[in-house]
Amino acid sequence: MIDISWPLSNNTTGYKDRPSVRIESLKEFDRDGACESAIWMTSHSGTHVDAPVHMLKEGKTIDRLSLESFSGHCVVLDLTMVLEKITSQELQEHADLIKDGDIVLCKTTNSYQEPTAPFNSNFVYIENTGAQYLVEKKVKAVGIDYLGIERNQPGHPTHSELMSNGIVVIEGLRLAHVEPGRYMIVCLPLNVIGLDGAPARAVLLSA
Amino acid sequence: MIDISWPLSNNTTGYKDRPSVRIESLKEFDRDGACESAIWMTSHSGTHVDAPVHMLKEGKTIDRLSLESFSGHCVVLDLTMVLEKITSQELQEHADLIKDGDIVLCKTTNSYQEPTAPFNSNFVYIENTGAQYLVEKKVKAVGIDYLGIERNQPGHPTHSELMSNGIVVIEGLRLAHVEPGRYMIVCLPLNVIGLDGAPARAVLLSA
Repeated sequence: MIDISWPLSNNTTGYKDRPSVRIESLKEFDRDGACESAIWMTSHSGTHVDAPVHMLKEGKTIDRLSLESFSGHCVVLDLTMVLEKITSQELQEHADLIKDGDIVLCKTTNSYQEPTAPFNSNFVYIENTGAQYLVEKKVKAVGIDYLGIERNQPGHPTHSELMSNGIVVIEGLRLAHVEPGRYMIVCLPLNVIGLDGAPARAVLLSA
Repeated sequence: MIDISWPLSNNTTGYKDRPSVRIESLKEFDRDGACESAIWMTSHSGTHVDAPVHMLKEGKTIDRLSLESFSGHCVVLDLTMVLEKITSQELQEHADLIKDGDIVLCKTTNSYQEPTAPFNSNFVYIENTGAQYLVEKKVKAVGIDYLGIERNQPGHPTHSELMSNGIVVIEGLRLAHVEPGRYMIVCLPLNVIGLDGAPARAVLLSA
């Protein structure tokens, strides 16, 4: 099992440096004989699955997605040469690797930033032509190694294109230590009723 | 994939009816063009993994446990006839089913309570003789279908016995819909640095 999840702490990078994770002690060993803590986070902190309702008014909530939506056959693409954005052209170079029903994970230079670094507004993202290409390829889900899958595109066309075609978006992966290639992914978001997304732990297994 | 996780909402049962989960809206579609939420929960809300440091002063934190500690070969035992507590005697009746290195999940009447019901202080728990028996059987982890694995035993002997022998404790499973028998379990707690436990999503796969 290869962990591809963002470590969570009070220092975890937040999207546009907004509050992301806050840990507080509720019980301490010396005082209470046991340790217990409280965790505050957003539905989009660290590694997480976006539910369609995050960006589509009539979209499904996270508890309405099947577990198979974000787990299964997976390909990690080497996109570490991309400087700014992943377009259809960059993805076409990997066309042979992407199969129907795949979960496509984009490994970029984003993965080489520290998980506690200040937010990088110049992160590598998937442009809407890249999203259109992934729809044509009939993939099941798309994962990116930063806290967003698109960067300030008016109307969120990448999210809309993917979500309106039933493709699940996984954000906040960590892929620096992962060899590009085929795997099985198990990505398990918390089952929060009615939510627009949820924090997840994600792992890769050999295919 | 069979989901065995506790659904999370503002109504989720809390241990001894303490605050468990609190969801708040941060962004709304009509106002902000996207939905986003905040989640407050404890390290022991809903389905979760107890890290040894929850009950052992020098114990490991959740991020120091290997992923294999809580995933792998698994047996779901039918303990729905147990009225109060699971002792070594109840477990011995299933001796042939429990293998070295197994993750043992105890299916009890607890699973038939609603996930939003008031806390039931008479929940079925594992008594310390049950814990001792599981140590002898060299299991890897133990899961229970309520928010605690023991009930008001002074000094927490069930936790101590299991944890001091390297056996991981998974609490808050939901097993009413699961046939007893052998499975593979994937249980993935959030990777929160330094914490005494963490909320998890857990699923069963056919063995």
